Amino acid sequence: MRFVRRAGLTNLVGLFVCMLSIPWGAHAQETGSLSIMPWPSHAVQGQGEFLIDGSFGITLNGYTEPRLERARQRFLDTLSRETGIPLWREAAVNQSHFTAHTAGPSLPVQQLREDESYRLEISPTDVQLTAANPLGVMHGLQTFLQLVRVTPKGFAVPAVSIDDAPRFPWRGLLIDSGHRFVRLPVVKRNLDGMEAVKLNVFHWRFADDQGFHIESKKFPLLQEKASGGFYYSQDEIREIVAYARDRGIRVMPEFDMPCHTASWFPGYPELGSGQNPAQSSAMDPTRESTYKILSGFIEEMTTLFPDAYFHTGGDECDFHEWESNLRIQQYMRAHGIKDGAALQAIFTARVQKIVAGNKRIMMGWDEVLQPNTPKDVVIQSWRGPKSLADAARSGNRDVLSSGYYIDLNQSAAEHYLVDPLGDPNASTLTPEQKARILGGEATMWTDIVSDENLDNRVWPRTAAIAERLWSPKEVQDVDSMYQRLAIVSQKLDYHGLRHRLITEEMLERMSGDPSPVALRTLASVVQPPRGYDRQQLRNFSDFTPLNRLDDAVPPESETARLFDVIAKRIASGKGTAQDWQQAQECLVLWRDNDAKLQPLLERSFLTQDLAPVSRNLSEVAEVGLHALENLKENRPVSAEERRRNIDFLKNSAKPQAVLLLMVAPSVERLVEATRIQ
Amino acid sequence: MRFVRRAGLTNLVGLFVCMLSIPWGAHAQETGSLSIMPWPSHAVQGQGEFLIDGSFGITLNGYTEPRLERARQRFLDTLSRETGIPLWREAAVNQSHFTAHTAGPSLPVQQLREDESYRLEISPTDVQLTAANPLGVMHGLQTFLQLVRVTPKGFAVPAVSIDDAPRFPWRGLLIDSGHRFVRLPVVKRNLDGMEAVKLNVFHWRFADDQGFHIESKKFPLLQEKASGGFYYSQDEIREIVAYARDRGIRVMPEFDMPCHTASWFPGYPELGSGQNPAQSSAMDPTRESTYKILSGFIEEMTTLFPDAYFHTGGDECDFHEWESNLRIQQYMRAHGIKDGAALQAIFTARVQKIVAGNKRIMMGWDEVLQPNTPKDVVIQSWRGPKSLADAARSGNRDVLSSGYYIDLNQSAAEHYLVDPLGDPNASTLTPEQKARILGGEATMWTDIVSDENLDNRVWPRTAAIAERLWSPKEVQDVDSMYQRLAIVSQKLDYHGLRHRLITEEMLERMSGDPSPVALRTLASVVQPPRGYDRQQLRNFSDFTPLNRLDDAVPPESETARLFDVIAKRIASGKGTAQDWQQAQECLVLWRDNDAKLQPLLERSFLTQDLAPVSRNLSEVAEVGLHALENLKENRPVSAEERRRNIDFLKNSAKPQAVLLLMVAPSVERLVEATRIQ
Repeated sequence: MRFVRRAGLTNLVGLFVCMLSIPWGAHAQETGSLSIMPWPSHAVQGQGEFLIDGSFGITLNGYTEPRLERARQRFLDTLSRETGIPLWREAAVNQSHFTAHTAGPSLPVQQLREDESYRLEISPTDVQLTAANPLGVMHGLQTFLQLVRVTPKGFAVPAVSIDDAPRFPWRGLLIDSGHRFVRLPVVKRNLDGMEAVKLNVFHWRFADDQGFHIESKKFPLLQEKASGGFYYSQDEIREIVAYARDRGIRVMPEFDMPCHTASWFPGYPELGSGQNPAQSSAMDPTRESTYKILSGFIEEMTTLFPDAYFHTGGDECDFHEWESNLRIQQYMRAHGIKDGAALQAIFTARVQKIVAGNKRIMMGWDEVLQPNTPKDVVIQSWRGPKSLADAARSGNRDVLSSGYYIDLNQSAAEHYLVDPLGDPNASTLTPEQKARILGGEATMWTDIVSDENLDNRVWPRTAAIAERLWSPKEVQDVDSMYQRLAIVSQKLDYHGLRHRLITEEMLERMSGDPSPVALRTLASVVQPPRGYDRQQLRNFSDFTPLNRLDDAVPPESETARLFDVIAKRIASGKGTAQDWQQAQECLVLWRDNDAKLQPLLERSFLTQDLAPVSRNLSEVAEVGLHALENLKENRPVSAEERRRNIDFLKNSAKPQAVLLLMVAPSVERLVEATRIQ
Repeated sequence: MRFVRRAGLTNLVGLFVCMLSIPWGAHAQETGSLSIMPWPSHAVQGQGEFLIDGSFGITLNGYTEPRLERARQRFLDTLSRETGIPLWREAAVNQSHFTAHTAGPSLPVQQLREDESYRLEISPTDVQLTAANPLGVMHGLQTFLQLVRVTPKGFAVPAVSIDDAPRFPWRGLLIDSGHRFVRLPVVKRNLDGMEAVKLNVFHWRFADDQGFHIESKKFPLLQEKASGGFYYSQDEIREIVAYARDRGIRVMPEFDMPCHTASWFPGYPELGSGQNPAQSSAMDPTRESTYKILSGFIEEMTTLFPDAYFHTGGDECDFHEWESNLRIQQYMRAHGIKDGAALQAIFTARVQKIVAGNKRIMMGWDEVLQPNTPKDVVIQSWRGPKSLADAARSGNRDVLSSGYYIDLNQSAAEHYLVDPLGDPNASTLTPEQKARILGGEATMWTDIVSDENLDNRVWPRTAAIAERLWSPKEVQDVDSMYQRLAIVSQKLDYHGLRHRLITEEMLERMSGDPSPVALRTLASVVQPPRGYDRQQLRNFSDFTPLNRLDDAVPPESETARLFDVIAKRIASGKGTAQDWQQAQECLVLWRDNDAKLQPLLERSFLTQDLAPVSRNLSEVAEVGLHALENLKENRPVSAEERRRNIDFLKNSAKPQAVLLLMVAPSVERLVEATRIQ
């Protein structure tokens, strides 16, 4: 009965034997020297710096409103966390060297293309922030917070002159509260993160087949029958809409229809199109009653969401359900509707009229675009650059999400290099057509994410997407992006995000060890597989606990990324002495880790299946050490040995225990670089 | 202008070269095998374990009330965090194998000596929790949460039969919102921590010379003139009282008087006794108007705090203020009052009558005890065991705080071994007198603590005090305490406490480095000086930013404590092979750390003064490595060399940059153990 466990050290004593570092500025263009993200449209550095101490204060002048006062207090709270100076309580008494001038109000409901520009002038003696309206002032305050750094003289911001405005007017984050209910504190702290990186659209999805998570007073059976007791009350919705407005963020709701709608039918079976409503996933577009309910529902929802846009989904209809329903078949024949797509188009047109009748502009996924779609409907492209360009060409405005699917574990660089106007499909557009491309949205689908690890899926990678959508097209230096991303990622802590804490907490829980050193080493070099592979490797239901290593680690291994940079330099003959030493140290750490980790993995059902992954890391590192030695001595290897090693490394790069060993390809580089006898 | 910084690794790749471990159970008595703290009065382990998976549910039966429902939901929330199983949303649908039976209600206002006992029976197939009232049920739920651990089969609690009740009925934590305003989220999460370790009195102090931080509607100038805008509204007070009741915790307010009261006088100068009210710190006990105001104020406050006890302070009067006031001198002569102490006694008697008139029992610090003090007044002893025993002998009940001053950076063990009845002074008491000693209170004075680091001052050490006050007197094994404390400390994360995160966050801020590896190594072996030395080494005002290394590190270095255990074994000739290896690895790490750290320390004004501390660690480690080698080889050293080293080590143990280098005394043990030529 007694259990044996180590009373380990706290995580205070640590030595990073394998401390990978890249000299700041080595590859960076001008953007490298200021820790701003998104990079501003114009920035000129000055001489000296502005010091922040206990006498710091900020004065708002010009136009004023309570939202600006709250922004000021929030700014002081964050600055207090950044510096440890209790400015939050001193502010009232302090002398101000920071003046923020607001020329006038913004619109009562934040609109697309509202002025978001600001000017920030920092000199060693004072700070001047000016903007046309509160939106610009709020953005400028965030830029100032990003510039704060510790120096030998104190906390300081460098002297700089910034003139900034966004490239695209629509810069969004979708959070899917349909698949899984996402609790309010999680939503709020992600809105705080959005503010920090100047995103301005919160696209909030409330229902999918799995659940219906918002309160309707007109149709209360929706939440009563399909939320499991967890839904946002109307007061909570109003609270979030106000919270977002306070941060310069619009809130656009999405109610996906006519498909992905199984959760509507337990309460209102008459909406369903299946033979058996309990197994139906699509609404019945042929009944008038459907439009009557939707009309009432949409009207009610527009009282909660003042935003000009209203998203009605429309993606991924499986037409089989309609086509196998005799009554719907008859209807289609009677009305000359040739197939499911045509039926959906009729549905979409009806819904668009309801939305327009409520003074809202409809938005929908790619599929809603049909030849007769009204030109004011905004298309959200998940299919790719071609559908984006097609929509613009057809006269509709559109927003790109393809390439920004942050649930698919791609790297920050991959997302970063997706430009809404960068695809060959877009290059053939006229300037007028290009102007219809409004921006993009990162999409946080919650099929396999929980309240606990959502932050580490969204952040910090979404900051890279935010830069793509805000900054000039030319800002494309991936090294600079990663360097600034590391700093922004840390600063997001000050906004309450938990992305940097989650992995360690989950490793502790998984292992039952308050300081899981060896498991941490393994965790640092693995990633969940990209794309939809993970769903195939592991059987997820909506109630699957997400407490395994593939849930815990970030979507992108920072260690593996940095190791790859070093391996590349070594393989190309450009490795520095430090590169060689760091590569050696990392590989030794990884080789030796397995002996420490194996006996521990057996102790927990959540780590048992990691045994082969850990062994694999050790063997890959062993191969890497040999390759390093061969390269150092310029010692030739047999073609046979090299092939065997490469085969082994390619095999090691395949998913195991729903994880990718991210250093295998880098070791392969080293092996490839060895000389053949 | 450009700043150079490393894009360091995230804190995922870590190797604890110096990984100190002590086999669990090596020194532990029976208490070692279950991770419960406070240890229960009776526990018998059974066979097997109860598994927790997605089917887990809990049913409440017997007496019920909304507070129990909330306790159940809170239990499921915490269990979800402990396991990663989303029980918080599944609970409604699950089958229950856990039944909690409540026999009847507790009192409408929680009373001293109310039944807190519970019985918890865990078998492999089910869990039965029974208690007389909700208080016992809530305690039992916390015990269950502490027992959860990860096993090869899943999350589980061991089969066990626990019959538990506290030794002392008064087990408190004082938080001083007088010196510094402590924000509500900090208060709340510390109440959550109190619940986790079964503390039942929150002693909340609202005013001191520095500020007045609660809203009075009768005397609004109190908060308006002396809170800097930061005070608890009456609604917030009611919210916290309800929050505490939900967790089985009484809330006793303290308004310290007649001294430490400077913050009362900006609003109500007539209360002050100094010639110049602005410089006064003591109330004027000779004016009737003083009692009129206090009567109105105390009456108002008793409407907010339903607790039976009301604390009126009474500590540390500097009688000079009275004795130098001509009018007060005349009054004293006229009424035959011989000195300040006698005048305070008259004041106390008047205040006691006001408190009693509001149906409350007065509590006060040592100084309020006078020969004619009513016997129901409860004395809080800060002076020491003698004053505690004196109060009990004089017929008053009392509560010990001397020895539990958690702001003074003592070790958990020091606090743990202070027993309210353990002092020779108490041993002469009759059983009836002993019964007057109600328990104790840990005191979190906020002279030099902030909202940010308060958690790491309170936790985990307060859990050791909680065990002293709850568990049988015989539970005294310090090794077992530390082993369980490490686990409880981790579990307090699940209750939202930030004590384990704070140090790392502050080191990152101090250094400007997202992964401050070398600084972390230094931080792991230093502590703020004990007692009041820190105030003398550093000039603190109430607005001093608390963002330096002595603010960041925990009050007790876990690394140094574990290293000392190893050093002791080696010095006494009982070191294992692992001990020798670990000692060697740690010393090498510490010796080599300085070379890495020195160039980084210069970059920040917050780390510059650590240069000599870092150098010192390196030199101490160097001496330690020599001693280790001498011991291993049994090589004699000259008396001269040994003396020189010991002098150096004693010197190194003195405070430097407001820090103690905690490994110096352990290295001294090694040197002491070497043989002289």
